[in-house]
Amino acid sequence: MGGDFGPPVIVAGLAGELDAWRAKGVRFLLHGDQAQIEAELARKPAARSLCDIQHADKVIASDEKPAQAVRRGKGSSLWNAVEAIRDGKAQAAVSGGNSGALMAISKLILRMAADLERPAFVVSWPSINGVTSVLDVGANIDCDAERLVEFAIMGAAFHRALHGKKEPSVGLLNVGEEEQKGHDEVREAHQLLRDGNFVADYRGFVEGNDLSSGVVDVVVTDGFTGNVALKTAEGTARFINNEMREAFRASLLGRVGALLAQSSLRRLRARIQPDAGGPLLGLNGIVVKAHGGADAKGFASAVRVAVDLAQSDYVSEIRRNLENLTAVLAKQSQARPVESLG
Amino acid sequence: MGGDFGPPVIVAGLAGELDAWRAKGVRFLLHGDQAQIEAELARKPAARSLCDIQHADKVIASDEKPAQAVRRGKGSSLWNAVEAIRDGKAQAAVSGGNSGALMAISKLILRMAADLERPAFVVSWPSINGVTSVLDVGANIDCDAERLVEFAIMGAAFHRALHGKKEPSVGLLNVGEEEQKGHDEVREAHQLLRDGNFVADYRGFVEGNDLSSGVVDVVVTDGFTGNVALKTAEGTARFINNEMREAFRASLLGRVGALLAQSSLRRLRARIQPDAGGPLLGLNGIVVKAHGGADAKGFASAVRVAVDLAQSDYVSEIRRNLENLTAVLAKQSQARPVESLG
Repeated sequence: MGGDFGPPVIVAGLAGELDAWRAKGVRFLLHGDQAQIEAELARKPAARSLCDIQHADKVIASDEKPAQAVRRGKGSSLWNAVEAIRDGKAQAAVSGGNSGALMAISKLILRMAADLERPAFVVSWPSINGVTSVLDVGANIDCDAERLVEFAIMGAAFHRALHGKKEPSVGLLNVGEEEQKGHDEVREAHQLLRDGNFVADYRGFVEGNDLSSGVVDVVVTDGFTGNVALKTAEGTARFINNEMREAFRASLLGRVGALLAQSSLRRLRARIQPDAGGPLLGLNGIVVKAHGGADAKGFASAVRVAVDLAQSDYVSEIRRNLENLTAVLAKQSQARPVESLG
Repeated sequence: MGGDFGPPVIVAGLAGELDAWRAKGVRFLLHGDQAQIEAELARKPAARSLCDIQHADKVIASDEKPAQAVRRGKGSSLWNAVEAIRDGKAQAAVSGGNSGALMAISKLILRMAADLERPAFVVSWPSINGVTSVLDVGANIDCDAERLVEFAIMGAAFHRALHGKKEPSVGLLNVGEEEQKGHDEVREAHQLLRDGNFVADYRGFVEGNDLSSGVVDVVVTDGFTGNVALKTAEGTARFINNEMREAFRASLLGRVGALLAQSSLRRLRARIQPDAGGPLLGLNGIVVKAHGGADAKGFASAVRVAVDLAQSDYVSEIRRNLENLTAVLAKQSQARPVESLG
């Protein structure tokens, strides 16, 4: 029922890629108003056999506050979709609905695997030779070293599941490449990642320009810095777009050039849009947010992310590495008092 | 003697804008090897009458470590240039030499006006309707609320002196515009700036995209976030440049378009280059770093910054507002125990 368009777009999104779903053995459990969903499926009969419906009377409004959604959301389509994961009826949930409500309800029902305040956001940042997975881009503002290592673990698992790279390389965002630079938290996280075996291919510090340089597959940072970086990139792209329009205005040739330039800038901006959806990382289960304004294709691509994550080792790999991290940290905190007794 | 080219470029830079210097009543005290400088001035006789020379035997190498430069730099051209400010022989110093050495020696000789670990870096960030002054972009990594307020004070004074705007608007970089968002330090700085009278036109929180949107004249952030933002913008511009080249390669028309696009991207990148020089903010005196690789024009523009700052109310305005800040903070820390007794 979520997103700006509800069942018509969601059903059309599923119906547009039936061959892909069949090849991967995917089935859908659709949550919401049964009559509305049946009506949409009647228009796409080929999709009908891949779908079950779980009726829900309630819908969470797009402007509902997260706290309110948690209190009153039980039995809504969004709630039921997340609950279906916990109950083993589904392996992943995709929603185009209220982001804050999705996050709060997912956290309540599935609980966090990592020791995070809230699920982390990851974006697929366009780079010179492909895509860099960047996290956190806004959910967790204050991050200690442990949180940053958790992001590294989740980011590597996400990138592997989505892009099929066996050992994604991971970098830690800093203001220089030397070990003595940066915040305490960043330096501590660097030591943990360098000495521990939490991600297979840890490459050390990277800088802001490396978000798009492609030197690493995954860039880890706190939610404050990640959010500023993301919005700075958007602002820069918009600024360049304006500059180009000015530069090109002079002649007919220029105007044609501007059209070419603008289409490539539009593609770029679409790729770095943070609201374009993505998984909520760090939950015990797979929940993917689709962009509220997504069309059928956009919704299908959010479903594809969920399928790729569900059919990979993603969840168990994260759990295994987080347990490893917890064990290492427990050992360190036991070791410390002994050291100080010297 | 500093920069990649030394006296030839520096003297040519001064000689190229003699009318401007005369109009502003500027004279130069050139520090370095007297014979070399005289030889260069002999080729630009019109500049000779505006220049005095203070001979120095020693030169600080571009790869010398700051600590070493401080220990052994006395009597070098760089040292003498900074010392001339302290001794009242000059009102500002401009150097294209070793940045770390310039910073350390300036701090030692002039001392910090603000309570900063080291001078802050400001860049003139190109925006849709002009230029945004952004600081700190890398010198001070860990910043508490007081530090951020100091940046606001220095940034406003810098922007006014350079761009002639009477009351520059100031924004604080955050991840959202609501008061409850962001780090503690950012929220505390927000309260100080909102309630105190440290900058005339404080506008509250801005986001990463506002670095180039032009909604405020000055954006304040810590050196970690500022450095990441700056390098992210550079990386984005480089990425777009590459994308355009690809998009344009198809046709002759496209190749012409690419030339247009690339020249505007080049201008953009030149404008956001952090090493392009700028004042070291927070010192008791005006020291401007010129880019080591600057040509005569680039060096002249660094001199223009120094002249504009020296001929404005810049130094005394910063001192006045910093004293105001110190007084307010002292009052607050006196007030607190009483409140907690209350």
